[in-house]
Amino acid sequence: MGINANALLAIGASPLMSFCPEEMEEIVRISSALVVNIGCLDRQEIEAMETAAATAHCLGKPWVLDPVGAGASHIRTQTALSLIRDFHPTVIRGNASEILCLAGEQITSRGVDSSALSSDAVEGAKSLALSSGAIVSVSGPVDYITDGSTVLTIANGHPLMSRITAMGCTASVITGAFVAAGGDALQAARNAMALMGIAGERAAARCAGTGSMEMHFIDELSTFDPADYARSIRI
Amino acid sequence: MGINANALLAIGASPLMSFCPEEMEEIVRISSALVVNIGCLDRQEIEAMETAAATAHCLGKPWVLDPVGAGASHIRTQTALSLIRDFHPTVIRGNASEILCLAGEQITSRGVDSSALSSDAVEGAKSLALSSGAIVSVSGPVDYITDGSTVLTIANGHPLMSRITAMGCTASVITGAFVAAGGDALQAARNAMALMGIAGERAAARCAGTGSMEMHFIDELSTFDPADYARSIRI
Amino acid sequence: MGINANALLAIGASPLMSFCPEEMEEIVRISSALVVNIGCLDRQEIEAMETAAATAHCLGKPWVLDPVGAGASHIRTQTALSLIRDFHPTVIRGNASEILCLAGEQITSRGVDSSALSSDAVEGAKSLALSSGAIVSVSGPVDYITDGSTVLTIANGHPLMSRITAMGCTASVITGAFVAAGGDALQAARNAMALMGIAGERAAARCAGTGSMEMHFIDELSTFDPADYARSIRI
Repeated sequence: MGINANALLAIGASPLMSFCPEEMEEIVRISSALVVNIGCLDRQEIEAMETAAATAHCLGKPWVLDPVGAGASHIRTQTALSLIRDFHPTVIRGNASEILCLAGEQITSRGVDSSALSSDAVEGAKSLALSSGAIVSVSGPVDYITDGSTVLTIANGHPLMSRITAMGCTASVITGAFVAAGGDALQAARNAMALMGIAGERAAARCAGTGSMEMHFIDELSTFDPADYARSIRI
Repeated sequence: MGINANALLAIGASPLMSFCPEEMEEIVRISSALVVNIGCLDRQEIEAMETAAATAHCLGKPWVLDPVGAGASHIRTQTALSLIRDFHPTVIRGNASEILCLAGEQITSRGVDSSALSSDAVEGAKSLALSSGAIVSVSGPVDYITDGSTVLTIANGHPLMSRITAMGCTASVITGAFVAAGGDALQAARNAMALMGIAGERAAARCAGTGSMEMHFIDELSTFDPADYARSIRI
Repeated sequence: MGINANALLAIGASPLMSFCPEEMEEIVRISSALVVNIGCLDRQEIEAMETAAATAHCLGKPWVLDPVGAGASHIRTQTALSLIRDFHPTVIRGNASEILCLAGEQITSRGVDSSALSSDAVEGAKSLALSSGAIVSVSGPVDYITDGSTVLTIANGHPLMSRITAMGCTASVITGAFVAAGGDALQAARNAMALMGIAGERAAARCAGTGSMEMHFIDELSTFDPADYARSIRI
């Protein structure tokens, strides 16, 4: 939660994090976008997630689902699938294992870290996008972002990013901020992954280990110059 | 929670964080002060907060209320108002939006970040202090600390502080540590905000973005020289 | 949770953190080791801890208990004692106060920070190891690791480590990663404390306060060279 909130504040967003079912409808009403992360779910949080997603869907607000650990337990897989079926997320952002699981493929989970390559999940991502109506964003060495027909790719990023906790969750909240800003959701989801990757590779170039990498990553987000964007993006 | 605990350890305090109603009375009994933060409330946490505040009030121990997001949802506003009415906090520390909401003024909330200026909350803060009997501490570009008649101000701090998550919560726990040390609560609450502001402006002067700002902020707290205090405070 | 996950990722482990009773059996089945930390317990988490520990015990997987704050409240003490009695942890890692409390000695708790010296807990640790069948690892200026007969010591580390939150919890998760790798559990528990201590003293030598200390600590873990180990360990 800390790095997610700090990443959002760094890029100028105003995050509010809540687990409380009773306030979820009110909170979503004053928000520009919702991100639902199933990383630390329990019974009450599932209720809160359902209320939040239902409100966003009902009000036509964009929302992003991060199916953390889908495939690692039935409750995670089922929660993610129910949220997709009932409340139609704007974007589903996960790693290759999670996306393959939601696309109905049999995978061997090793928890929240992916056991599959993002390149192996492209067909699964397209299939999930078509069946759900969501943009599907698969992160990995190359990120794939698809609406089921078009597939955009981002080749920015650095292997060290996978050794900092919650970098996937951070990609999801940044995606939430980008879709909140409006415009085409496919482009927004791609631009979010490009920002993640550019900030990550710059942080990796300056760091002395994964501790300082996390700090530099937030520094990069907070000082990012959009004019720099076109020069750094690798498609 | 991480930055709050690290800030307290940095200044020599010994924090224990708990959500568990069953242990709250015991924990408050071995504590010098209590800080109640409604930032991530749920049903069980509200029960824990009530037990904790009741115990502190009953034992005459100082306690600080941080009404995070009051105004953003009814359950936050009502929880904060009930805790104030029933258990009489020593200090209420919030941003301008939160304090105006608790003072009964209509505000447009944008979540946990303030939509009002601290200078616009001075009369509300005085009114809340008089009605509640608490010291009210409003953080912002200028911090206002009042018992309802006297208003003290602190002009230290830096705009980047609002782009690091939990800085308001950190101000509240530092306030808790200062009132735990005894003496006049109005002065203690003011000194806590001065320490926050001085550490924040020094961290801002050294940082390369909001990630390193957070690190330098904790470094400043952990190496703060009280002799330096009088030279740096801006009233 | 953040520093724990980052410490594990830094050394190449793949952590998954969960509070959810419903998924605990599945998660433990795909894990190499379990760490149960009672730092933020509530009713549901106690149920999750019991299911997790029962599964690990039943499957013969190594598991580590961190009895955070045992002695500070009855629910913490009782939860830790029940988990030990019913599910036989491989290692119990705590500070001196916590270990003395679990060994049945009367201590005056000051919360989650130890009020006793690790050297005063050696006999208690041996007694707890004999009665529980667990390796007991007591952290402090000198770390003591015992199976009830042999007592190993580690003199690495730095006083500043006690001023960073969750360093004890981090010692427990690193211990979990080391026992997951197999081999003799007494040696694994000792090697984990040595790595903690070496990384801590190197981080302390480079830091400007407790904020940068935490960052350097993770950097040290992520770049640790095992060949360096024998030169740095102090027994």
